Amino acid sequence: MNTFGKRFTLTTFGESHGKAIGCIVDGVPAGLKIDEEFIQAQLDRRKPGKSKLETARKEDDRVEILSGVFEGVTTGTPIAMVIYNTNQKSKDYSNIKDMFRPGHADFTYFHKYGIRDYRGGGRSSARETAARVAGGAIAQLMLKELGVEISSGVLQIDDIKANKIDFEYAKTSILNALDKDVEQAQQEAVLKAKEEHDSVGGVVLTQAIGVPVGLGEPMYYKLDAILAEAMMGINAAKAVEIGDGTDVVSLKGSQNNDEITSQGFKTNHSGGMLGGISNGDRVVVKTYFKPTPSIFQEQDTIDIHNQEIKCNLKGRHDPCVAIRGAIVTEAMMALVLADMVLLNMGRKMEHLKSIYKV
Amino acid sequence: MNTFGKRFTLTTFGESHGKAIGCIVDGVPAGLKIDEEFIQAQLDRRKPGKSKLETARKEDDRVEILSGVFEGVTTGTPIAMVIYNTNQKSKDYSNIKDMFRPGHADFTYFHKYGIRDYRGGGRSSARETAARVAGGAIAQLMLKELGVEISSGVLQIDDIKANKIDFEYAKTSILNALDKDVEQAQQEAVLKAKEEHDSVGGVVLTQAIGVPVGLGEPMYYKLDAILAEAMMGINAAKAVEIGDGTDVVSLKGSQNNDEITSQGFKTNHSGGMLGGISNGDRVVVKTYFKPTPSIFQEQDTIDIHNQEIKCNLKGRHDPCVAIRGAIVTEAMMALVLADMVLLNMGRKMEHLKSIYKV
Amino acid sequence: MNTFGKRFTLTTFGESHGKAIGCIVDGVPAGLKIDEEFIQAQLDRRKPGKSKLETARKEDDRVEILSGVFEGVTTGTPIAMVIYNTNQKSKDYSNIKDMFRPGHADFTYFHKYGIRDYRGGGRSSARETAARVAGGAIAQLMLKELGVEISSGVLQIDDIKANKIDFEYAKTSILNALDKDVEQAQQEAVLKAKEEHDSVGGVVLTQAIGVPVGLGEPMYYKLDAILAEAMMGINAAKAVEIGDGTDVVSLKGSQNNDEITSQGFKTNHSGGMLGGISNGDRVVVKTYFKPTPSIFQEQDTIDIHNQEIKCNLKGRHDPCVAIRGAIVTEAMMALVLADMVLLNMGRKMEHLKSIYKV
Amino acid sequence: MNTFGKRFTLTTFGESHGKAIGCIVDGVPAGLKIDEEFIQAQLDRRKPGKSKLETARKEDDRVEILSGVFEGVTTGTPIAMVIYNTNQKSKDYSNIKDMFRPGHADFTYFHKYGIRDYRGGGRSSARETAARVAGGAIAQLMLKELGVEISSGVLQIDDIKANKIDFEYAKTSILNALDKDVEQAQQEAVLKAKEEHDSVGGVVLTQAIGVPVGLGEPMYYKLDAILAEAMMGINAAKAVEIGDGTDVVSLKGSQNNDEITSQGFKTNHSGGMLGGISNGDRVVVKTYFKPTPSIFQEQDTIDIHNQEIKCNLKGRHDPCVAIRGAIVTEAMMALVLADMVLLNMGRKMEHLKSIYKV
Repeated sequence: MNTFGKRFTLTTFGESHGKAIGCIVDGVPAGLKIDEEFIQAQLDRRKPGKSKLETARKEDDRVEILSGVFEGVTTGTPIAMVIYNTNQKSKDYSNIKDMFRPGHADFTYFHKYGIRDYRGGGRSSARETAARVAGGAIAQLMLKELGVEISSGVLQIDDIKANKIDFEYAKTSILNALDKDVEQAQQEAVLKAKEEHDSVGGVVLTQAIGVPVGLGEPMYYKLDAILAEAMMGINAAKAVEIGDGTDVVSLKGSQNNDEITSQGFKTNHSGGMLGGISNGDRVVVKTYFKPTPSIFQEQDTIDIHNQEIKCNLKGRHDPCVAIRGAIVTEAMMALVLADMVLLNMGRKMEHLKSIYKV
Repeated sequence: MNTFGKRFTLTTFGESHGKAIGCIVDGVPAGLKIDEEFIQAQLDRRKPGKSKLETARKEDDRVEILSGVFEGVTTGTPIAMVIYNTNQKSKDYSNIKDMFRPGHADFTYFHKYGIRDYRGGGRSSARETAARVAGGAIAQLMLKELGVEISSGVLQIDDIKANKIDFEYAKTSILNALDKDVEQAQQEAVLKAKEEHDSVGGVVLTQAIGVPVGLGEPMYYKLDAILAEAMMGINAAKAVEIGDGTDVVSLKGSQNNDEITSQGFKTNHSGGMLGGISNGDRVVVKTYFKPTPSIFQEQDTIDIHNQEIKCNLKGRHDPCVAIRGAIVTEAMMALVLADMVLLNMGRKMEHLKSIYKV
Repeated sequence: MNTFGKRFTLTTFGESHGKAIGCIVDGVPAGLKIDEEFIQAQLDRRKPGKSKLETARKEDDRVEILSGVFEGVTTGTPIAMVIYNTNQKSKDYSNIKDMFRPGHADFTYFHKYGIRDYRGGGRSSARETAARVAGGAIAQLMLKELGVEISSGVLQIDDIKANKIDFEYAKTSILNALDKDVEQAQQEAVLKAKEEHDSVGGVVLTQAIGVPVGLGEPMYYKLDAILAEAMMGINAAKAVEIGDGTDVVSLKGSQNNDEITSQGFKTNHSGGMLGGISNGDRVVVKTYFKPTPSIFQEQDTIDIHNQEIKCNLKGRHDPCVAIRGAIVTEAMMALVLADMVLLNMGRKMEHLKSIYKV
Repeated sequence: MNTFGKRFTLTTFGESHGKAIGCIVDGVPAGLKIDEEFIQAQLDRRKPGKSKLETARKEDDRVEILSGVFEGVTTGTPIAMVIYNTNQKSKDYSNIKDMFRPGHADFTYFHKYGIRDYRGGGRSSARETAARVAGGAIAQLMLKELGVEISSGVLQIDDIKANKIDFEYAKTSILNALDKDVEQAQQEAVLKAKEEHDSVGGVVLTQAIGVPVGLGEPMYYKLDAILAEAMMGINAAKAVEIGDGTDVVSLKGSQNNDEITSQGFKTNHSGGMLGGISNGDRVVVKTYFKPTPSIFQEQDTIDIHNQEIKCNLKGRHDPCVAIRGAIVTEAMMALVLADMVLLNMGRKMEHLKSIYKV
């Protein structure tokens, strides 16, 4: 239940205010060079406190590899990574001890488990996504050796949409913005919400280039279905689109079909897959994030005794989770693709004969 | 790879033009009364040829239960069901034998498996969804005994959106339309596309009421994530929304949070879940279907030898797959919820003590 | 729960006296030629009624492939097979309707599921093993293309042990006997038990030759562990040995270690694996079958109301299940090895680079 | 691949000479009191260096819980535990850097992964079993609340067999001996082997009492099959018996069947299960361990370049792995039963109605 994937798997653990969070990455082929700096760099891109657009909460997020790597190379055994929690201010949460914060998982965790781990959301905190980013970085390292590159960026904040897509620019932007020209307006939308003690939603675009044809396992492990699962499972995600997504509804078949030439597809409405299997074109996914539920306006709620009370939150929270969420979508896409790469091996008898030298 | 779910599982088999399609449903608790007429009725709702809005292809879709039911009641053993194919016109496909139809899975299956099963899409045909509907019907029977009811309907065709939601009306509509007032316009959009040898997209709304609080398994088997997987995995689906979905991007946190009273949630922007766990409110999912890729206009494509050729399709195809797709979304939602119901058992020690009478 | 394997999977269904039994084999690579005669021949080796050593019950066991094979070759989609039940004599079981037969699963199924499917054991009947043999035959076809050959035979009946191992002879023997010289004595032991309205146990030896080095996934999907699971899960199995098995207890390390030369291992005490991974030597497994629980002597038992009654069985039963069990062990070993072959692909980065041509 | 179980799961990581070993235990119900001293006590029973019968290697094996427990009680989230390695003498292994030790996994790991992690066996070292014991202890805590108690002890060393079974005595014995009267002789056999720079095998008996009727999931997750997998997967195990095990071969059905009275079964030849499902009687399993492959006599072997060399081991090794192996069998049995307890919930519709209060 805390494991993602079938062959290249990520199992995470940890609560936002426990001793540590971390993960075990299993199924990594032996012989992959592990660039620890890249893993740390991905974590640094996700970590909070880098700008006024994010929570002021500082998390150091130093990752330590405990196993599975010998002399800088994977051995084929599970790779455990741990990030110790160093900056928990549990006292921030004392006033919400028995309260269900609107828009948060407090209510459902309590009813499911009968336990109220009030420390900053406990397991349901987005802090868990640091473990995804660490695991996803290993998937990215593997994919890079196969020529697959994954990128992400913020497409939209509130109603302000990017008009162009520049993944290179996004890497330099504190907002992970894809369009330099609207970035300023998007920043202002975030800051305005923050000033109003409110929060705002956003859309992230994630893509992979260099994906081999044939990834995705019909009927119930299709590439699009598992990407949808991966993205929708990220905290605060509420919608996922593949390729042209919701726009296809207003298209005719003659407009939406990607015609084929001997050089490849003329268009990529499909987002790089047909029948749930990659077609070699760019894999394109959009993820819609709701506005952060932690806001600093008074809200109606109840406590664990079903008594109505007022919710007045303190603490430090991102006014827009989509910004840091972008890095998490990269990790999730990498985990999906790495898994599909392994699952796809052996789909043809000729693969078996080649590997087993018959 | 052809199995959906973890505890309540559906495994399907069969190609559109093979001998039979069918499924094994495993994990069904013993002691569930099986209403075979309900299963057949669901299949009849899905089967093609009921109106001019659908393909003229007739499929009888008689389902036969081979195992797992004794004296009308489940025994706890796997339930196998088979539907023999009776109306395959393989000759319709002879002209596309070596051709990749734009928008279809022909290209990707061929490259993945090295095989061209040209008979009507083979495994990738939406005919496979009949097996989902049969399996989903058993899930629905189980859920009904727990007070959970699932409904679906067509929300939008092309640009024509429903203004009201009436699931009861949808059951009587040949379009599965949710809004009687726009149904006529939606039908005309379908027929216009058909006349133009083209096709059109649509949006399906699916809901469950009576869902107990606590369904969904964090971190990687969340209710929203698995619903997204389930719906995106349906043929032609390109986007999935939970609750308010894409609309949340333009909302502030103060607008989007569902405040809580002692009587329940004031609103249901969330679509019935928080942190990926059901909160007792209506579960609401929207699925966006692309226009049917099979159109009767000439298209550019290539054959298996990478030669450019013209694609001119014959045969009988739905001009809008969203209509019949609605029934499939019900089946998928039922399969997800049935699985979650079983997985959730044993999340508290008190459940164990109750069942094992300690 | 009715699925065996992770990548090459067998899912079975059916009760001994239901409409049909059968299976879905999933994960079979595309491009494998399917020799239907071989599948049927394996079923014929397992089917009862071939000699006086077996139950007089005749089962025709005609297998029909419903999907996954096109023009004689696998397509990579699930292969469904069905065997219709044709010779059920349900009346034979009317006298045991409410009774728990000693040594049978009647008691435990009833308490687990709350249902008494008294028709010949229902799902717990060894009839289910026909589906294993059908699925195993497909695994054997795949393994043969990789140079792996699986054989089995009866090593021991009661106290009468084989002194030599001749798998070729076993194929011609109605007892599947490995040693022609003790076969007569073994047959007499079976017939004597039968005459005394009793039954007798036996030991089956199963081997695979040509197994590539490297099969088996540590830590929890080791080759030896999964072979043990596979064999112990066969009806009536009570012990499983790998290589020298129980005999190793009385050996010193210096006797039991298989020393290594540049030509290979000097001995094969290990049964072809080290650390749960195949070492290229013969894979050797022994399975111990208890005497058939269905005997024709009066026994004490209870009924479903916990009333003590006498059990007097009628019907037709094998006096020694080990004989036909041998064929089932072949199927199970083939399923394990086929699964391990697929799982092992991608354990090295160089495999990935080779398949994806980087 | 490094995960054991389906609902109550153990995922382990770590190499004998890496930074740490550890595990994630997932699926533990919320509300279980965690007695950390019990977990440590089980680890202390397993740890080496407690007597001259064991390796002189000292391992402190202090376990630290990183997540999943809040205020002494499980929260339903994954429980991560880590044991830092503190006493690795890597230099002990420098002389075997390129050598395959006979009887060890060196050969197979190298060929599978293309990597030679020579540090004390790396992942294949029995040190990994400390993580199993930690995870198994949590399973034991859960089972205790349901009235299930697991015990183990050494039945046989070399040819010296216990004549009586006293699990209470075993807890006090440095050999984990079940029979006080033969313990001295068994100790001498171990010490004699040690003096001769050799090693010796042994048999462990493991039992569970208080097991509820109905555990085990046919057809492919039977209790006996999974216990066999669990035990055979322990380092150095070569045979597993359920109940009377190999002895049943020489019994007649009339001798082996456990007759039933209204008070229960008259005998327990079956080892507490029928048809792979627990029958409420004692669950009894025997595991046969080979003599430790690390011996201090010269042996023939090869290196990674296929050159023949002499193997002369140094270091510190148990002369008989069965002794400490006993504790590992307890852990594995607990993990199996805890998993089966969770899986069995929901096998009847009445369970669902009870939990969901319909």
